[in-house]
Amino acid sequence: MPPASTEGATPRGKLMSVEMAEQPEVLRRLTTDGLARIRQTAAAIARRGPRFVLLTARGTSDNAALYAKYLVEVLLGKPAGLTSMSTTTIYGAEPNLTDCLVITVSQSGGSPDLVASTEAARKAGAVTLAVTNNPDSPLAAVAEFHLDMLAGAEKALPATKTYTAALLTLYLFVEGLRDGDCSAAATLPDLAEHILDRRTEVAELAQRYRFAQRLVITSRGYGYPTAREGALKIMETGYIPAASFSGADLLHGPLAMLDDTTPVIAVVPGGPAGRALEPVLERVRERGADLGVIGHADEVARATAGFVLPSGVPDALRPILEILPLQRLAYEISIARGLDPDTPRALAKVTETR
Amino acid sequence: MPPASTEGATPRGKLMSVEMAEQPEVLRRLTTDGLARIRQTAAAIARRGPRFVLLTARGTSDNAALYAKYLVEVLLGKPAGLTSMSTTTIYGAEPNLTDCLVITVSQSGGSPDLVASTEAARKAGAVTLAVTNNPDSPLAAVAEFHLDMLAGAEKALPATKTYTAALLTLYLFVEGLRDGDCSAAATLPDLAEHILDRRTEVAELAQRYRFAQRLVITSRGYGYPTAREGALKIMETGYIPAASFSGADLLHGPLAMLDDTTPVIAVVPGGPAGRALEPVLERVRERGADLGVIGHADEVARATAGFVLPSGVPDALRPILEILPLQRLAYEISIARGLDPDTPRALAKVTETR
Repeated sequence: MPPASTEGATPRGKLMSVEMAEQPEVLRRLTTDGLARIRQTAAAIARRGPRFVLLTARGTSDNAALYAKYLVEVLLGKPAGLTSMSTTTIYGAEPNLTDCLVITVSQSGGSPDLVASTEAARKAGAVTLAVTNNPDSPLAAVAEFHLDMLAGAEKALPATKTYTAALLTLYLFVEGLRDGDCSAAATLPDLAEHILDRRTEVAELAQRYRFAQRLVITSRGYGYPTAREGALKIMETGYIPAASFSGADLLHGPLAMLDDTTPVIAVVPGGPAGRALEPVLERVRERGADLGVIGHADEVARATAGFVLPSGVPDALRPILEILPLQRLAYEISIARGLDPDTPRALAKVTETR
Repeated sequence: MPPASTEGATPRGKLMSVEMAEQPEVLRRLTTDGLARIRQTAAAIARRGPRFVLLTARGTSDNAALYAKYLVEVLLGKPAGLTSMSTTTIYGAEPNLTDCLVITVSQSGGSPDLVASTEAARKAGAVTLAVTNNPDSPLAAVAEFHLDMLAGAEKALPATKTYTAALLTLYLFVEGLRDGDCSAAATLPDLAEHILDRRTEVAELAQRYRFAQRLVITSRGYGYPTAREGALKIMETGYIPAASFSGADLLHGPLAMLDDTTPVIAVVPGGPAGRALEPVLERVRERGADLGVIGHADEVARATAGFVLPSGVPDALRPILEILPLQRLAYEISIARGLDPDTPRALAKVTETR
């Protein structure tokens, strides 16, 4: 076990902890300084009249891309898809991407497959937009348009502030495409701050899960990318295998493996998505699985553990808040297990996949 | 533990075993009797000139849909996406689907969300195609076009013959869209028969994994849907939590959780996709994880366990063979653990998600 704190050395999890705490400030920066540039870019792209939207990303950014897919489908009413990069990088597919907007999301902007795939998309006729945290990256250079997440350098290996920054950038961009009102986003920084202040609650929750052999995280709709990102954080920092399923998919097979040894965490918003999850949670309870809930107060009250999130936030913006307790949970589990969440074993900050 | 065989009762796994064994016959039926109708439907849809393809499905059929997404991107060069059904069923999105082909895949054709989503797509201007194993189903009725998987009634809860039948139907259909040559598919029934005959090999492999607390299955490109479907089979019949990742995504986080207690199974084709997996397998070995391989003889020889698949089959068709040993593995693990793979706990054949 690495020492919790040694003179001269960085305490375990210091970087991740600081970067998580910076999130309200990053969100504020995007809704103020960042907004004009995002709206400008969105207006320029809207004039090109894209009819289909493709999203390309890996890892944490892929969860941000999935969130953007919901935004595009729900807010714009445009068909969208996530790119399977291997079709071009391995099988040499030469798609016709006229009328397509291809959005590539990457914190570092450095992964060769993302650069190659964006370059190929541009040649194939797509309008290309890179969303990165590094305007000087190769990815920003090959894309026709670029949006900066403005999150500042991220030094911990697990992406946290670049995830919420990517979500908000994508939200403001998609609202910009339809010249929509995005003033609701202005409430996020303060709400995020209040949530991040409730560290003790999350530390208690971590005590519940620190010895788990595995975890299942579920949600639906806009909450599904949050379930996937929460699972990824817990895998990479706590080394606990955490599977994520949309509530509907959970009923198509994986439900059978649930029992009283597999804790389930559900991200439950209010409104129609929350109601759609109810029958799923019922089935999970029938399997005897322990159920923790992140979200709506009523559902948290019915669960054995949880974390209440503020109500009244529009569906499309909730993911930016919902992930906060899960990031912190991953961090606390990692610390409780004697690990250093800043530097998970076997991972690199720029993952060079091809 | 249910009895292995009781007079008058069906022996454990009998249905699944019989249905797996029917697969060569089903594949033969599709390439002979089924072909003309599939080509005809494809030609009719090609005349409508769809530019973008959306695929809608759940569970096992969702893995078939993902396979079809690769086919559409690689063979047709058209952008494609998997539908997030909740955008219409929960958030009431009203997409404009002019020039879109929406393919809905469902063994039963009975799930209300698939029916609703296909109906909505048709109203939104899409050309709609249902691929089901039941021409009298509500889904077949609401879609403009319908293709029958011709797999015969499937009685075991875990889908096996309807999965390979869906893959082949989708392959023949996509080749039909470009008026392509699909004669290579004619070799599949015999190859499938040889693979299915090698039951003893799979039973030995099952002894290796029967006590596993969890499993990870990985692959890339066309093999990725196979990894997902293999994991789903093992979760639903053996109740072992099995996570699946594309090789590239595995390096973006989940790699950290791997250690010598988590066996990894890789589906490794020959050719470029196999080469793209090599660095991933290297990293998995570095983590000390036990690595089993399904696929290319050279990689199986380097692994601690595996199952060799015949070479010389085109990339696009390999998934129809690669899944066979994994289906059987799930079955054997279930039997070895004293379970009945025909009737996994908590599941229903027609899953009524909304």
